[in-house]
Amino acid sequence: MTPGHSSSPPLAKSLPPVDGREGHEQRLASGYGARSSNSGLVPLTVARRSPKEDDVEIAIEYCGLCHSDVHATRGEWSAPKYPLIPGHEIVGRVSRVGSAVDDLSVGQLVGVGCMVDSCRECERCLDGFEQYCETGVVSTYGAADPRNEGAITQGGYSSSVVVDRRYVLRVPTNLDPAAVAPLLCAGITTYSPLRHFGVEEGDVVGVVGLGGLGHMAVKLAKAMGAEVKVFTTSEVKIAAAKELGADDVVLSKDAASMAAAEGSIDVIIDTVAAPHDLDPYFRTLRLEGALFQLGLPSEPMPPVNPWTLSRRRIAYSGSYIGGIAETQEMLDFCAEHGVVSDIEIVSAAQLNDAYDRMVAGDVKYRFVLDTKSLPAPAAKADA
Amino acid sequence: MTPGHSSSPPLAKSLPPVDGREGHEQRLASGYGARSSNSGLVPLTVARRSPKEDDVEIAIEYCGLCHSDVHATRGEWSAPKYPLIPGHEIVGRVSRVGSAVDDLSVGQLVGVGCMVDSCRECERCLDGFEQYCETGVVSTYGAADPRNEGAITQGGYSSSVVVDRRYVLRVPTNLDPAAVAPLLCAGITTYSPLRHFGVEEGDVVGVVGLGGLGHMAVKLAKAMGAEVKVFTTSEVKIAAAKELGADDVVLSKDAASMAAAEGSIDVIIDTVAAPHDLDPYFRTLRLEGALFQLGLPSEPMPPVNPWTLSRRRIAYSGSYIGGIAETQEMLDFCAEHGVVSDIEIVSAAQLNDAYDRMVAGDVKYRFVLDTKSLPAPAAKADA
Repeated sequence: MTPGHSSSPPLAKSLPPVDGREGHEQRLASGYGARSSNSGLVPLTVARRSPKEDDVEIAIEYCGLCHSDVHATRGEWSAPKYPLIPGHEIVGRVSRVGSAVDDLSVGQLVGVGCMVDSCRECERCLDGFEQYCETGVVSTYGAADPRNEGAITQGGYSSSVVVDRRYVLRVPTNLDPAAVAPLLCAGITTYSPLRHFGVEEGDVVGVVGLGGLGHMAVKLAKAMGAEVKVFTTSEVKIAAAKELGADDVVLSKDAASMAAAEGSIDVIIDTVAAPHDLDPYFRTLRLEGALFQLGLPSEPMPPVNPWTLSRRRIAYSGSYIGGIAETQEMLDFCAEHGVVSDIEIVSAAQLNDAYDRMVAGDVKYRFVLDTKSLPAPAAKADA
Repeated sequence: MTPGHSSSPPLAKSLPPVDGREGHEQRLASGYGARSSNSGLVPLTVARRSPKEDDVEIAIEYCGLCHSDVHATRGEWSAPKYPLIPGHEIVGRVSRVGSAVDDLSVGQLVGVGCMVDSCRECERCLDGFEQYCETGVVSTYGAADPRNEGAITQGGYSSSVVVDRRYVLRVPTNLDPAAVAPLLCAGITTYSPLRHFGVEEGDVVGVVGLGGLGHMAVKLAKAMGAEVKVFTTSEVKIAAAKELGADDVVLSKDAASMAAAEGSIDVIIDTVAAPHDLDPYFRTLRLEGALFQLGLPSEPMPPVNPWTLSRRRIAYSGSYIGGIAETQEMLDFCAEHGVVSDIEIVSAAQLNDAYDRMVAGDVKYRFVLDTKSLPAPAAKADA
């Protein structure tokens, strides 16, 4: 979709560190983010720490635009600390490594997803479920970072980022790096429940909603050997679903289509973030099938009918991104199966329009920021 | 709790068959059931078929009283065909067998649970999940019986019953047969989800509601080696829960107790049949824990918060009795571990009072009808 970047950080100013203490030197990087809930996205300059011994400095090439970026920058989920640079679907090249990092080298293609740290000590972290860390993960943006003096993390709409090695992924080189970026959130968020359920060849996977997550669910489930049924409310999406690889499309507003799908599906990935009645979808599940609701509406969902769950021992579940090892596994799986996101590259100047289009559902299926389009950093950091 | 019965059917009148066709001979048996939704329970006489080649005729000794019997006889769930003899927790002795039955003999202690037939051909039946039969099970009472000319099945508040061998269980002889009866519904309904989840030594099982199902869940989970926490709304039930074997009791209305239980439980068996907010219970589950809702309220449940499910990949599920092989496994498990229901024996004349007490929650923990107390059958069948 675009030619590759050079391996050097193009936009990090070669200024002297702004903080001379060991492990606390900083470099200024360019970024785009929100100054307030209604500022829209504007150019910002961010101070990035120099790599500590376990850190990796990454010259960001691409960053996917996730719907949660919109909610976060607009303060729709919680009141964030501004300024806030979003972005947690980061692909770039290693530009510097700390002294203890011996398995990544400068120039190597790497990625960062939704988290940049966790406690590393709880049972979940030790089991590779860092996303469910008992004390909470350090999100890639907008989170206080306890191992870095509580500084608020700033995300990937930026020319560079510094992240502890443990939370950095190797990005396969046989895939378009721009189209890999959305795998770091949309990809792993759908891959993890499919794997958790144990999807394999011959299984039937249902996908509700055909956006950033939904289109990845279709591609990943197909790559796992499953038969894929997409549920959609509109006939105009049938062709799009089939283009992505769906074997079948069910019109969810058509009672006859839904009745025909009854009891036919092993697992449903539901990506719709608006309240909707799940009962018709539960009825399409086979015995001991599961529905993973990944879209999280801000308004209450309609009540669940426990009779429907009981009569086929159906599980209604959720899932939250994936662990670091699992994310690496997903990237390697995508490399093996040639799976990437369908993307539309945008420049920094197009970010606000892209947000409006995301809210309107007008994207097939993920916007990705090309960081070459970021302005140079200012002389002084905003964040 | 009462001495054993003799092995001959005490109440089946030795009348000539009322229908002389081969395989269609009938015997009159006594019973207690409803003539209408507001008749209460009254003496009824039921015509039982002579055993066909695969059938077993059982002289019923005990039948447990399940809360669903109350709903069914009062027409609260659907409009049944009256007269209706309820009862699906049947223990008795074989009195006759069909020509093809070679593994059960007259006098042997056997049981019948919630179903007396299913299609036997669908994937679920073939896999031992007869309870989820794709064409629907033939319930032990109130169901049209396709292999017997569509006759409406009549249940276990009766002196005898005739059931296809495939749906008859062997009852271990080292347990009190009266206290075994509730295992055929309350026992298997809680055993199946515990086994499905894979409960083993060291797991923590939560039980919500301490009635017929709940008390069995406590006993079975303990026998599986689990640590058991009972949730209750009232302090007066703490002692009762501990008597049953609970390791811990959580007062569900006390926020501090609920907070202390957060993230501590592997699987919850929820037996409460009134609408209640599940979110506080979901929060007590560990990562990838599950809640099985077995109580099925007739009013809608409060909405589920999908955030809670997502943040620990919790599964909200249901479960419906168990398969025949699994029910046999459960009975054998109970024999090995000495598990039976806590019961109060009632006579036929006490059935209406017992129903009122069940509705009021005044039973520890299951009523069981002693069929010796049934009146003799009339000269003509009511059903």
